[in-house]
Amino acid sequence: MRVLRLTLQYDGAGFVGWQRQAQGASIQGLLEDALATIEGYPPAVVGAGRTDAGVHALGQVASVRLAHAIPEDALVRALNAMLPGSVRVLDAVEADPAFHARFDARAKTYAYRILNRAAGSAFDRRYAWHLGQPLDRAAMAGAARLVVGTHDFAAFQASGSAATSTVRTMFDASIRAAPGLDEVLGAPFGSAARGAGDLVVFVVRGDGFLRHMVRGLAGTLVEIGLGRMRPDDLAALLREGRREEAGPTAPAHGLFLVGVEYEPRDLKPGPESR
Amino acid sequence: MRVLRLTLQYDGAGFVGWQRQAQGASIQGLLEDALATIEGYPPAVVGAGRTDAGVHALGQVASVRLAHAIPEDALVRALNAMLPGSVRVLDAVEADPAFHARFDARAKTYAYRILNRAAGSAFDRRYAWHLGQPLDRAAMAGAARLVVGTHDFAAFQASGSAATSTVRTMFDASIRAAPGLDEVLGAPFGSAARGAGDLVVFVVRGDGFLRHMVRGLAGTLVEIGLGRMRPDDLAALLREGRREEAGPTAPAHGLFLVGVEYEPRDLKPGPESR
Repeated sequence: MRVLRLTLQYDGAGFVGWQRQAQGASIQGLLEDALATIEGYPPAVVGAGRTDAGVHALGQVASVRLAHAIPEDALVRALNAMLPGSVRVLDAVEADPAFHARFDARAKTYAYRILNRAAGSAFDRRYAWHLGQPLDRAAMAGAARLVVGTHDFAAFQASGSAATSTVRTMFDASIRAAPGLDEVLGAPFGSAARGAGDLVVFVVRGDGFLRHMVRGLAGTLVEIGLGRMRPDDLAALLREGRREEAGPTAPAHGLFLVGVEYEPRDLKPGPESR
Repeated sequence: MRVLRLTLQYDGAGFVGWQRQAQGASIQGLLEDALATIEGYPPAVVGAGRTDAGVHALGQVASVRLAHAIPEDALVRALNAMLPGSVRVLDAVEADPAFHARFDARAKTYAYRILNRAAGSAFDRRYAWHLGQPLDRAAMAGAARLVVGTHDFAAFQASGSAATSTVRTMFDASIRAAPGLDEVLGAPFGSAARGAGDLVVFVVRGDGFLRHMVRGLAGTLVEIGLGRMRPDDLAALLREGRREEAGPTAPAHGLFLVGVEYEPRDLKPGPESR
């Protein structure tokens, strides 16, 4: 049995999320069903991040044990031929036999995209939360820095969750400007950039994330950007963990799982491990 | 009566094209219906480029005569509140009373986006033609340059078209590399760029375009990029105009109307014209 590490991207619209559910299409379910046509039965696919319904991924990582001897590049082609165009396998590599995409992840990076201008975008409407009122980016950036470090994120957990511990460590957290997709599509071709950097992007990298945590942080940062909360309120939420005082959960379609990091040994099996 | 110049963007998927048809949703039809709620009857909206079904626009320009005194910024907000999210009015300005979006256009720029890598993209699947076989970009660039100048483009016209003249002048035509949308979404956030510039973009700027002309040129350039035609074949097509020898018409979803250019006088009414 080989253990394979798959890197994949998906447009989260129309899916119930990463995880297989009783009803609806999930990315895990589609992958397992596609792998079943190769393996003969559906093998269990483990995802690094269990993204919710509507959340996108640029670099989700999954692990799967496979008995079939199909070469990695043929596997990528076969899976992409079976999966819908909104889910693409970018890469498959043989990993250490003990590799587990979720337990071995050392860091994950999420980006939450906010389009902050009067008119929405025909192209970012699926990929960014549109807010017409101007956001105070400096206040948001100051508040985002408070998230860095080890904190109890209980205030930013989905209600009804029962994580054993709500303490997580954030290595980086920042607010960045970025061009909208329409600016990107038009910029190299001479169309006038209508204000470079219409997007406010919250980027956060940490050792783990509670359910709805990034969307809860993004919603709270937006309240700060609108002047309805102060950076001190975020500090208090991290100290006291009262969920009812956090900002609203930002909508799913602005959130991207950007990438997952592992120890190098998990990725390149040495000769002794084969 | 004021004449207003509207700048708009749209995602062409799901539309029958710019022009109102007996069946199906058109951008012109949606705009006229939305304006009717303000004006009391649907005013005729003229578009600079009559984009086909599935073709996108980043900077389409339209003109309309309006009796209602609604301020420009209120008009933009009202239209965007009525239009679907896939069509956005970016701007409305009062123009010279004689301004006509189609007849007064001096140049239009189109971009045809080709994603050229083995795996498709979950994000570019709506906005680029995916071709897995490697394209010879240098050969395509050399051929694209042949398009510049005044030529009879009869070989690149949709069958059944009856344009009075098939001679058009192209001011610029080039092949450019550009990052895919997944590269753009991931790049600022530390995700590994999987080969910068997965896109091959054909950009062309000219005084006018025949129906399907850019898609016919793009299809022919792809044949050249695949080694199935030579740049000389494109030169012969421009000389002899035999449609059956051109490459296939590239699919609509890779094409963008990037922008439209006018004489400055059309845009800024002087005091004598008010």
